[in-house]
Amino acid sequence: MAILIRGGTVIDANETYRADVLCNDSASGGAIAQIGADLEAPAGATVIDAGGQYVMPGGIDPHTHMELPFMGTTASDDFYTGTAAGLSGGTTSIIDFVIPSPKQPLMSAFEEWRGWAEKAAADYGFHVAVTWWDESVHRDMGTLVHEHGVSSFKHFMAYKNAIMADDEVLVNSFMRALELGALPTVHAENGELVFRLQRELLARGFTGPEAHPLSRPPEVEGEAANRAIRIAQVLGVPVYIVHVSAKDALDAIIRARSEGQRVFGEVLAGHLVIDESVYRDTDWGRAAAHVMSPPFRTQQHRDALWHGLQAGHLHTTATDHCVFCASQKAMGREDFTKIPNGCGGVEDRMSVLWHHGVNTGRLTPNEFVRVTSTNAAQIFNLYPRKGAVAVGADADLVVWDPQATKTISVATHHQNVDFNVFEGMTVKGVATHTITRGHLAWADGDLRAQRGAGRYLKRPPNPAYFEAVRVANRLKEVEPVAR
Amino acid sequence: MAILIRGGTVIDANETYRADVLCNDSASGGAIAQIGADLEAPAGATVIDAGGQYVMPGGIDPHTHMELPFMGTTASDDFYTGTAAGLSGGTTSIIDFVIPSPKQPLMSAFEEWRGWAEKAAADYGFHVAVTWWDESVHRDMGTLVHEHGVSSFKHFMAYKNAIMADDEVLVNSFMRALELGALPTVHAENGELVFRLQRELLARGFTGPEAHPLSRPPEVEGEAANRAIRIAQVLGVPVYIVHVSAKDALDAIIRARSEGQRVFGEVLAGHLVIDESVYRDTDWGRAAAHVMSPPFRTQQHRDALWHGLQAGHLHTTATDHCVFCASQKAMGREDFTKIPNGCGGVEDRMSVLWHHGVNTGRLTPNEFVRVTSTNAAQIFNLYPRKGAVAVGADADLVVWDPQATKTISVATHHQNVDFNVFEGMTVKGVATHTITRGHLAWADGDLRAQRGAGRYLKRPPNPAYFEAVRVANRLKEVEPVAR
Amino acid sequence: MAILIRGGTVIDANETYRADVLCNDSASGGAIAQIGADLEAPAGATVIDAGGQYVMPGGIDPHTHMELPFMGTTASDDFYTGTAAGLSGGTTSIIDFVIPSPKQPLMSAFEEWRGWAEKAAADYGFHVAVTWWDESVHRDMGTLVHEHGVSSFKHFMAYKNAIMADDEVLVNSFMRALELGALPTVHAENGELVFRLQRELLARGFTGPEAHPLSRPPEVEGEAANRAIRIAQVLGVPVYIVHVSAKDALDAIIRARSEGQRVFGEVLAGHLVIDESVYRDTDWGRAAAHVMSPPFRTQQHRDALWHGLQAGHLHTTATDHCVFCASQKAMGREDFTKIPNGCGGVEDRMSVLWHHGVNTGRLTPNEFVRVTSTNAAQIFNLYPRKGAVAVGADADLVVWDPQATKTISVATHHQNVDFNVFEGMTVKGVATHTITRGHLAWADGDLRAQRGAGRYLKRPPNPAYFEAVRVANRLKEVEPVAR
Amino acid sequence: MAILIRGGTVIDANETYRADVLCNDSASGGAIAQIGADLEAPAGATVIDAGGQYVMPGGIDPHTHMELPFMGTTASDDFYTGTAAGLSGGTTSIIDFVIPSPKQPLMSAFEEWRGWAEKAAADYGFHVAVTWWDESVHRDMGTLVHEHGVSSFKHFMAYKNAIMADDEVLVNSFMRALELGALPTVHAENGELVFRLQRELLARGFTGPEAHPLSRPPEVEGEAANRAIRIAQVLGVPVYIVHVSAKDALDAIIRARSEGQRVFGEVLAGHLVIDESVYRDTDWGRAAAHVMSPPFRTQQHRDALWHGLQAGHLHTTATDHCVFCASQKAMGREDFTKIPNGCGGVEDRMSVLWHHGVNTGRLTPNEFVRVTSTNAAQIFNLYPRKGAVAVGADADLVVWDPQATKTISVATHHQNVDFNVFEGMTVKGVATHTITRGHLAWADGDLRAQRGAGRYLKRPPNPAYFEAVRVANRLKEVEPVAR
Repeated sequence: MAILIRGGTVIDANETYRADVLCNDSASGGAIAQIGADLEAPAGATVIDAGGQYVMPGGIDPHTHMELPFMGTTASDDFYTGTAAGLSGGTTSIIDFVIPSPKQPLMSAFEEWRGWAEKAAADYGFHVAVTWWDESVHRDMGTLVHEHGVSSFKHFMAYKNAIMADDEVLVNSFMRALELGALPTVHAENGELVFRLQRELLARGFTGPEAHPLSRPPEVEGEAANRAIRIAQVLGVPVYIVHVSAKDALDAIIRARSEGQRVFGEVLAGHLVIDESVYRDTDWGRAAAHVMSPPFRTQQHRDALWHGLQAGHLHTTATDHCVFCASQKAMGREDFTKIPNGCGGVEDRMSVLWHHGVNTGRLTPNEFVRVTSTNAAQIFNLYPRKGAVAVGADADLVVWDPQATKTISVATHHQNVDFNVFEGMTVKGVATHTITRGHLAWADGDLRAQRGAGRYLKRPPNPAYFEAVRVANRLKEVEPVAR
Repeated sequence: MAILIRGGTVIDANETYRADVLCNDSASGGAIAQIGADLEAPAGATVIDAGGQYVMPGGIDPHTHMELPFMGTTASDDFYTGTAAGLSGGTTSIIDFVIPSPKQPLMSAFEEWRGWAEKAAADYGFHVAVTWWDESVHRDMGTLVHEHGVSSFKHFMAYKNAIMADDEVLVNSFMRALELGALPTVHAENGELVFRLQRELLARGFTGPEAHPLSRPPEVEGEAANRAIRIAQVLGVPVYIVHVSAKDALDAIIRARSEGQRVFGEVLAGHLVIDESVYRDTDWGRAAAHVMSPPFRTQQHRDALWHGLQAGHLHTTATDHCVFCASQKAMGREDFTKIPNGCGGVEDRMSVLWHHGVNTGRLTPNEFVRVTSTNAAQIFNLYPRKGAVAVGADADLVVWDPQATKTISVATHHQNVDFNVFEGMTVKGVATHTITRGHLAWADGDLRAQRGAGRYLKRPPNPAYFEAVRVANRLKEVEPVAR
Repeated sequence: MAILIRGGTVIDANETYRADVLCNDSASGGAIAQIGADLEAPAGATVIDAGGQYVMPGGIDPHTHMELPFMGTTASDDFYTGTAAGLSGGTTSIIDFVIPSPKQPLMSAFEEWRGWAEKAAADYGFHVAVTWWDESVHRDMGTLVHEHGVSSFKHFMAYKNAIMADDEVLVNSFMRALELGALPTVHAENGELVFRLQRELLARGFTGPEAHPLSRPPEVEGEAANRAIRIAQVLGVPVYIVHVSAKDALDAIIRARSEGQRVFGEVLAGHLVIDESVYRDTDWGRAAAHVMSPPFRTQQHRDALWHGLQAGHLHTTATDHCVFCASQKAMGREDFTKIPNGCGGVEDRMSVLWHHGVNTGRLTPNEFVRVTSTNAAQIFNLYPRKGAVAVGADADLVVWDPQATKTISVATHHQNVDFNVFEGMTVKGVATHTITRGHLAWADGDLRAQRGAGRYLKRPPNPAYFEAVRVANRLKEVEPVAR
Repeated sequence: MAILIRGGTVIDANETYRADVLCNDSASGGAIAQIGADLEAPAGATVIDAGGQYVMPGGIDPHTHMELPFMGTTASDDFYTGTAAGLSGGTTSIIDFVIPSPKQPLMSAFEEWRGWAEKAAADYGFHVAVTWWDESVHRDMGTLVHEHGVSSFKHFMAYKNAIMADDEVLVNSFMRALELGALPTVHAENGELVFRLQRELLARGFTGPEAHPLSRPPEVEGEAANRAIRIAQVLGVPVYIVHVSAKDALDAIIRARSEGQRVFGEVLAGHLVIDESVYRDTDWGRAAAHVMSPPFRTQQHRDALWHGLQAGHLHTTATDHCVFCASQKAMGREDFTKIPNGCGGVEDRMSVLWHHGVNTGRLTPNEFVRVTSTNAAQIFNLYPRKGAVAVGADADLVVWDPQATKTISVATHHQNVDFNVFEGMTVKGVATHTITRGHLAWADGDLRAQRGAGRYLKRPPNPAYFEAVRVANRLKEVEPVAR
C-alpha cells in the first residue's frame, strides 16, 4: 500500500520546501516514488495529512547495542523491541556492533549477530569490533568488507582484561582498514587508568555508582581520543570517535581537523543533556541506572559538545542504546565496577535533539537532519539510500510535529527496560508518523512495527572521503636518499 | 534551444551519480528541467557529450569588484568582460560590491552600480558597503533589504581616511543588520596599524612593493578579524570574514565557532597558492601586479587555509577579482601605498581549486562543489536556485573534464587585464562547457557570452541560520533584579 | 632603632631557609643590614620573635587609585589611609596612577598627584595615563621617563567620551614608550561596546547594578586585550595587561607569549575569589559596592585565572584599590552607569592570596612571593631594592604567621571605606608584623603607620627584558629590494 | 687555593650587578665565601680578572648519558671525558641516567653506574629509569629515594621490545613516585608507532638515516607527551618531559600548565638549532652522526621551542649527551634502526644557548641563567647549592666573555668523539674560566679537569612544588555517598 504524505514541509540537510511525498509500499521496494506539489494519491494509498508538519529523513542511530551479551548479562532490548522503539521516535535505521570475545573469530561473531538481528523491525547494519589480533582477524576483516558490506570497525581502548585493544592492535587494525577502505572507530578511554582508578576507589571504600565517573574522568577520555587520532594521523587513515562526552576529547578532534586530518566525532543525546550529578543520587537504583561509559559530565562539557555539534566538529548523534533492567544493574550492588554499563535512548534521541537543539537555536532544522541522519549516512556510506528525502531513496521518513509535546517516561516508552534517563523531560517536537521502507510503522501513537521487517544494510567500502585520504597519502611519499 | 548534457557524472554537495541533465533554454527561464538516466533530447536541443566528465553547479564567486573606481582609477574588467571571463572558467554567478564614498547615500551608490552591471553576461548580486553612518544609512539599509534583495553588508576595517569603518560604525551597522536579517561581512585589517606601518616604511626608504606585505602583516589581519568577531558575538549577530589570508584570522574564526558562534570565512584562490615572495621580485611590474590587500602570505599560512577549508572552518572560495593594468599599477611607481590594490582570478578560481584541492586529496569533489558554489548560495540565500544540480534550479552548470589540463596565461585568458597571478601554472581539471541559465556560454574553448544576459539576483534576508541566531539570542535574555 | 627579626624562616622568590634578619632603622636608610643564623641584636634594637613564622618581602600592589577624582567624586582612601591599610596587611609599596583629564598636560597632572601622595605612609611610584595625544604628550612622556622615574604608561581602552584611548593614541603612545624603554600598560575593555551595551540596557529598563556585568561581558575584555597585544606585537613593544578578569583576555596573553611576545598580565585578588552573582544581590547597596570594571566573573573565569597565575601566564597580583562609600555609590541609584567604579582590597590582598593560593596548593610559598612582590618589582624595575629579602635591599618586610587566622570585615579593617568585598571571609595566613624601610609599622594588631613617611619611587627605564626586545626587533629588520 | 673573581658582573636568575666573588678552595669545601665590592684576595689566592665579563652559576646539564651501554655498544665519552668537556664549556654539573635492563634490579644498576661515575671531573647526580615493574622495583624506588638521594625517575615510552614502559608501568611508577615525593620524567615517543614505521620503511627500501626522522614524526612525540601528561594529571603527580623537540609535545605541555598542572619541559640545545635536513645529507656518516631520538626537526618546530623557552613553558636546557664514533654509528650501515642513537653537546650547550638565545633577544641574560642552571637546580632539588651565585653555595661558577667568539669544531673540542653536531658554528659568548667547587678547571683555554674530583649529588625528595601538589590533591578528595 503506497503512502502519500500530503501538505507537509520537506526538510533535508540542505533545504526546506513545501512538497508532498509519495512512497512506494514495502512490497514494491519501499522507495520514495515522487516529491512535488499536489501529488495525486494512488488508489488505495494511505494518506497522511502533514499540514503544519515537517517531513524529514528517518533518523539513523549509528551506535546501538541490542541484546548485547555484556558483563555477565544481556541487554534487555533485543533487535525487535529496540528497533520498534526507535520507530516510535522517528529512527528508522541503526548500526549495531558485533563484538567478538577475545580469540573469537570475527566471522563467527558476525554470524551470531546476524542471526539475532533477523527479528529487527527496521533496517540495520553492523560495525565489527576488533578486540584482538592475529592473521585470521586480518583475513576476516577483508571478508567482512568484500563480501558482507561491513565497512567500519570498532576498537575499545577501555575494558582492560576483556576487550581492550592496545596500541599494537590499534596499529594493526587501522592499517588493515586503510587498505580496505573501511573506517576505524574507537571508544576512547584509557583502560589502564580506568582499571587503576577503579582499584583505588574500591580500596578507599567507594563501592557505589558515584565512583563510576570518578573512575573515568574527562582526562581519561581526552588522552585516548588524542592517542587514537594521532595514531590515525601517522598511519594516514580517517578515524571516527564514538560517544565523545568530554571537552578534552572534542578538543583533540578540533586540533586534528584544524591540521587537515579526516576525523569524525559522534555525540550521544544523553551526553548533551544529562548531568553527572545523577551518580550521587541517594537512590542507588537511579544512580546505577545511569552507569554507562563514558559517564555523564558537567555543564561545561555539555556546552562544549553542543558547540562542537554546531560548528561541525562533531558530525553524528547516537545513543549507545544498551539497556539493562534494575535487576541486572543490581549485579553491581556491592561493587560499582560490576554494574552492567549502558543506558537507553534510541526512542527519544530525535525529540531530545530537536527540543534542546532546534528549539534553542543551536541547530537549524537542516542541521538537525544532518546530525540525525545525513552525516551518518555519508560517513558510513549509506547515502543517498538513507539520510535523504529524494526520489529513489528508501522511504524511511518521519513526519514531525514541531508544536506537539510529550513528556518522556518509562510509563509510556516502548523500550524494553524499566528506566528512562530522560524521565520527566517534556520535549516539544515529536514524530507523529514514521515510515520504514514504505511501511507506516508509527502513526499518531500507534506502533505497528513488524518483527523481522528490517533488512541488513550492506555498506560498501571507500566512501568519498576515503579516496581523498588515499590521494593525500600518496602525495606525501618521499624517496630514499641515493648515496 | 534546450540543452541536454548526456553521459556525465553529476556531482553536487552531497553525492556523485551518473545522470543526464536537461536544461530549458534561456527563453523558457533557463532552469533544469530533468535529471535522470538516458534522457531523450527534445527536438532541436543542443546535446553535450559529457562522457568521462562531471556535471556540477556553476561556480559562484561571492567577492568581485568589476569596474570598481578605486585609488584614483577604475578596475579594467567591467561587468561584461569580467563575467564573461568567469563563464570561460566555469563561474556562473558573482556577488559584487557597491561601495559608497564616505557621505554618499547608499541608495545613490546602489543605483550607480546597478547601472554599470546591466552589461553583465552572467547573473550577479550585490553586497553594499557601509563606509560611514547616519540616520540615512540606517534607513537605506532597510530599503536595500526590503525592496532590493540586498541581504549582506560589507565593512572595511582598513583604508584609514577613506572608507574605513571604526568600531562605532561597525556596532551601528551590525545591530541594524541583525534587525534586518542581513549578514554583515568584514574586510579585516587594522587600518590604524596599516596606516602607521606605511608611514614608517616610507620614512625608512621603502617605496617598492616589497613594503606592501610589511605594512599589512598577519597580526594586523588577525587583530581585526578577532575584533569583528567579538563585536558580532556581543551583539548576537552572525558575521562573515572576507578573504581570510592569515592563520591568525583563521584561528579567530575557529575559536569563535568552537564557542557556538555563527561565523563564516571566505578564502581566495590566490591566497591558497601564491607565496609572499612575489613582492620581492626584482621586476617592479611583476611585484606590483601582486599588490592586493591582504597580501599573499607564507607557506605556513597557506597550509592553515587549506586545513581550514577542509575542516569546514572556511566556507567559501572567492577571488576579490579587481584588476588593474600595468599602466594603472604604475601610479604607485614611487610610493607603494599608491599602487592600486587588486588582482584577478575570476576565470581561474575553479581550476586552481580543483587542481590544488581535489587532485591533492585535500577536498573531495563534493566538497569542491560546496566551497565553490553551494555554501555561498546557502550563506547568501541563493540556494537552491543556485549551487545545486536539481530540477527547477537555474541551469547554471559546468561540464568539467578532470583529465584535461591547461596552462594559465595572460596570453590566453579572457580577463581584460595584462597580467595573471597564476601565469604558467598548469592545472588538471578544466571547464569544457559552461551553461548560464540555459545558455551555452562556453563550449570547448569557444566563448559565447552574451552582453547583458546576466540578471540581477535578489537575495532575500533571513537565511536559515539567522532564525537560529534569533532564537538563541532570545533565550539568552535575563531580567532586571526586582529590588 | 634597628629591628631584628629572630627565629623566622625566610621565603623569597627562589628559596626558603631559616635565618634571622637585621634591619637598619629608617633614619639610617632603612635597608636590610644582615641575614644569617643567630644574629646579634644591636643595642636598642627592637626584636621580633618570628618563631614558626615566615619572613617575606613586603607586598607590592602595582595597581591602586588613592584619592582618585573619578566619575564626579573622589576615592575615599587617600594616600595616607590607603598605604596605612596596606601596611596592616603586609603591603609595603604601591604603584598608583596619574590620570590626566583629556587635554590636561601630563606634567601638570603628575605634579598634582605627587602633591597628594606626600602624605603616604609607605613607598609609592606612579604609572602615568596617556588619555589623549599631541606633541606635548610625546614630550612629557620623555620628561617623565628621563627626569622623574616614571617608566610605565597606562591606557584605558574603555570609558568612551572620557579617558578612552583609541587605536591612534595607542599606536602613538606605544611607539613612544618603545623609544623610551618604558612599559605600556592597558585597561582592556572595548569602550565602544561597553557604551552601546549600557545604552541598550538602560533602554530595556535595566537601571540597577545587575546590568553592570551585562554591559561588560568577558568578550569585551578579550577583544581589547587581544587588540592591545597585537598592536604591541606589530610595533615590537612589550605590554602589560592590568586586571585580567576573563579567560578570554588570559587566552590572548597565552597565545602571544606562546609566539615569543613579551606580554605580562596582572590579576586582582577580587577577581580570583568573588563571583559575579554579587551584582544580583537584592540589596542595592551591596550590589553597587561591587561595581568595578572589569566586573567580577563566574567560576570558570576564576579557575582560568588561578591556572594562569600558577603557570606563569599572569605575573602580578594587585587590587585596583579605589574605594567609594555608600553615599558615593548612591550617585548611581537610578542609573548603574553612574555608580562610581571601584572596590577595595589593598589591605587584604596578601591574606586572600595566601589563603586561596598557598593553602590550596595552587601556589608554593615562593611563588606567592613572586606574584605578590618580586615579579612586580622586576617588571616595573624596582628590583632588587624591592621584592627581595637581601642585604642592601629596602627593609620592606612582612612577618607572616601561616597558622593565624582572621575574619575580614569592615568592622575591623583599616581602609577608609564602609564596605569590604571580602566581608566575612576567614583567612588563614596573616601579617603579624610589617616593616617599611626599617620602620615597624604594624605589630601584632597595632598600626603605627607614619603619615608622610613613604617616599616616591623613581623607576628607571629599560628593565632587562627591554634590552632583549630591542635586540629582537633589530634582528627582524629587512631591507628594501634593489631594482 | 682560594679563587677571587675580580671586576666582573654577576648574573643570576634574578639580577645583574657588579661584584667580586671569592671562592673557598676545594679542600675547604669549595663554597662561595664572599660576594661584594672590592674584595680582598686572601694570601695565595688565584685572582681572575673578570673585567668586562659575567660571572654566572655553572651550567647544569640535567640530561646526559656518559659511557652508556646502548644498542650493542658503549657511548664514547665516559664520566671523566664527558664532565671535563662540560667544564671547558661552562657546565659544572650533570644529571645522568641509570638505565636498568629489563628485569635487572634497580639497585644493582644503580651501583654499577655509581662505580663508573667515580672518575667524573665534575659533580653528578642520577635519575634512575623504571623499565619494568615488580615488587622489587617498588621497593628499590623507596631505597633510592630514602637512602641514595635519587629523587627523579625516568620512563622510556619508546624502544619497544627493549626498555619501553607501557601504560601499566607508567601508572605503577608514577603512583610510587608520588608517594615518595620523587619526580617522574618521560622520554615521550609512542614506541609502537616507531616500531611499526621502522618496519614499514625498511620494507619500502629505506635503509639510510633519512628514514630515521620518518620513523619518529612529531605526532609520535606529541601523542606520548600528551599521554604521559594526562596520566600524571589523573594520578595527581608532577611530571617532567625530557627533550621536547616537537611543537606537538610543547602544545601538550602548554595545555596542561594552562589547566593548573605541574608539568616541566626540557629542551636540548641541538633541537633548538639543527634542522632535520641533516638526515638527507648524501654523506652517510654525517647523516648517521645526527641520529638521535627524537630527531632534529623543521624550523617551525624550532621556532615553537624557542618561544616555549621564552614563555616559561619549557624550563631547562640539556643535551642528551650520548656520543658514538663513526665506527660505532657504522653498525647501522645497512639498517638505520641499528645506528646507535645519540649526539653530543655537553661542551657547547652554554655557548649555543647564549649565541642563539641572548644575542638574538630571545632570552635575557638572567633568563639564560634560569634555563641553563637555576631551573634545573630547583626542579631537581639541588637549589641553592647549585644554580645560584650566593654565599654558601657550591663554588660552581663560569666566567663568561660575551664578546669573545669561537668556532665550534671537532678539531678543537674536548669531547671524546669524532663528530660535532655544531661543527663550524661560530658563537659569540664563551666561558673563559670554569670553577667547579672551588677548583679552577678551565682557564683561558687550559683544561685542568681532575679525574675523580666530581662528587655524587644526593638530591632529597619533595621539592617545594611537591608539597603544593600534595595539598592540591588532598583538597580534591570527595566522599562516598551515604545511601
